[in-house]
Amino acid sequence: MATLHRGRQSIIFDRRPALLSYGAIGGKKEHEGPLAAYFDDTSQDTRFRQRSWEKAEQKMQALALETAKRKAGLHDEALGAIFGGDLLNQCVSTSFAVRDTHVPFLGLYGACSTMAESLLLAGMAVNGGYVSTAAAMSSSHFATAERQYRFPLNYGGQRTPTAQWTVTGAGCVLLGQHEKGPFLHAATMGTVVDYGIKDASNMGAAMAPAAYTTLRAHFDDLHLSPEDYDLIVTGDLGAVGEEILQELFQRDGVTLPHYRDCGTMIYDLKRQDVHAGGSGCGCSAVVLCGYLLRRMAKGEYHNILFCGTGALLSPLTTQQGESIPGICHAVAIRDAR
Amino acid sequence: MATLHRGRQSIIFDRRPALLSYGAIGGKKEHEGPLAAYFDDTSQDTRFRQRSWEKAEQKMQALALETAKRKAGLHDEALGAIFGGDLLNQCVSTSFAVRDTHVPFLGLYGACSTMAESLLLAGMAVNGGYVSTAAAMSSSHFATAERQYRFPLNYGGQRTPTAQWTVTGAGCVLLGQHEKGPFLHAATMGTVVDYGIKDASNMGAAMAPAAYTTLRAHFDDLHLSPEDYDLIVTGDLGAVGEEILQELFQRDGVTLPHYRDCGTMIYDLKRQDVHAGGSGCGCSAVVLCGYLLRRMAKGEYHNILFCGTGALLSPLTTQQGESIPGICHAVAIRDAR
Repeated sequence: MATLHRGRQSIIFDRRPALLSYGAIGGKKEHEGPLAAYFDDTSQDTRFRQRSWEKAEQKMQALALETAKRKAGLHDEALGAIFGGDLLNQCVSTSFAVRDTHVPFLGLYGACSTMAESLLLAGMAVNGGYVSTAAAMSSSHFATAERQYRFPLNYGGQRTPTAQWTVTGAGCVLLGQHEKGPFLHAATMGTVVDYGIKDASNMGAAMAPAAYTTLRAHFDDLHLSPEDYDLIVTGDLGAVGEEILQELFQRDGVTLPHYRDCGTMIYDLKRQDVHAGGSGCGCSAVVLCGYLLRRMAKGEYHNILFCGTGALLSPLTTQQGESIPGICHAVAIRDAR
Repeated sequence: MATLHRGRQSIIFDRRPALLSYGAIGGKKEHEGPLAAYFDDTSQDTRFRQRSWEKAEQKMQALALETAKRKAGLHDEALGAIFGGDLLNQCVSTSFAVRDTHVPFLGLYGACSTMAESLLLAGMAVNGGYVSTAAAMSSSHFATAERQYRFPLNYGGQRTPTAQWTVTGAGCVLLGQHEKGPFLHAATMGTVVDYGIKDASNMGAAMAPAAYTTLRAHFDDLHLSPEDYDLIVTGDLGAVGEEILQELFQRDGVTLPHYRDCGTMIYDLKRQDVHAGGSGCGCSAVVLCGYLLRRMAKGEYHNILFCGTGALLSPLTTQQGESIPGICHAVAIRDAR
């Protein structure tokens, strides 16, 4: 029997599933940011012409899926499965977004690591021949997240300097077998890592140790080094977390020469008043499906390690005095087989 | 390339992952029910000696995992991945339960279908050689679910006749390659099905159409009929939902000769005042890991189709006037290869 696991946490996609197409939908603030030109669609209306913000988030996911299907020329009948999730309680953005598709649906919860988790599992499903095509998708919405996790928007609560701004956006990748890339090469599954951080306004610090642990495992398991990638990108550590991650590696005498974070890429941190940067499942989803894969298609990146980072807390665990466990799943994407 | 998908929704586990061991933990009311003798452990204390019900639910999942590992003689270091989820917002029961294991963790949300979803995905991972062993687990707790989904317990709200009682329990199965069964043979991934039911106190009616759709797909995709199983068991349709499911099949001229529902098995419906029966992720998890697999080990069942059923609503979607989408994932378990 072929063994595709490597070391403690990593797996090989020996049949190299291809990223057939991708769609990225953004909101108003994302449209005003530096990556505006890379979205398939953005809306000036944070409600996306729906009756509530929650329905707007469902609409964004449905649009991201539609966009990816249209680009790949694929109809629902030809889509084998959808892997996806979001931040809302009971992951309702995703399950309502796929309600009318009649496509098999596997719901996930990995907090803001969900885009990477869904790519990893959709990759397993396509690589293993369980489905011929699969969608991986995720979303977040500033207004749905604020009122669920923090305060009603009208309350006008002040934000701490370490706080991040939940991205309004949705991303979707379609995977299948194809001659043309980019391709999934490998992945590293994350473990739950908790360094005891209790400040729910400092998610970057809570997630950075998880990113460090997964990246270490990735390099060790697959006998790789940071230099083997022309981009290592984390999901939403923000300005605080990306500094901590680099510090953790510096202690080991390792530098990350081509490292960036989606949370500090999606907004202009000074001009857009987002404090430590962007966050939310939608952050890494739209930066991947909008910016990174388009730059790879242009030949500007060849070898990306995409690391989704998630904080596995709930408002209730914070109220009960718990610390914030983090997780990070990594997926290696290359433009060649 | 080996193609393991069949028809629209089904997959074949050609390498027949084995169920190496299983653990079932129950609460006080479950201990008073007809399946009491089949649990590995139960507690008279609904807090399981923890400071909150939420921590009690985490404890139950940790105990279920511990039990399964002990029976299989497996340590965390040898466990390739954990697939699991629960009903709490942000699935915190599961992520906190696995926090100290250092085992790769893939978080899932399938509402009460999660035990079947986790078996399906853990099965894919083991069958594909991505991990050599994997855990599939889930839980629910009456008190955590009541206060999150409905009313504070102290409010003493009256329950409708169609309401179900969330099971306090956790179940865990370990999968791997082994000569001895039982074995996973096949699975059918569910689609989101919504017949427009809006009564959140009648989940059975909301989920029955999803169970019907998945069972139909299972029989069609794999050219099987209900007679091919000596037990078809749904997760938590309860007394109302199981009747609707049988009616839907009767319209097609099909009877389900060996059909039961975990929700009506776990409690004595008349004596225990649970109205339409049990529900929650823990319901199908403990009936499978406690009762069904033990009876299969004794040779009393040979061929079970285990169908997890989930209602993909949140309190917010109900408040916003939405109907209740359902989902059902099915896994075929046999005692022989």
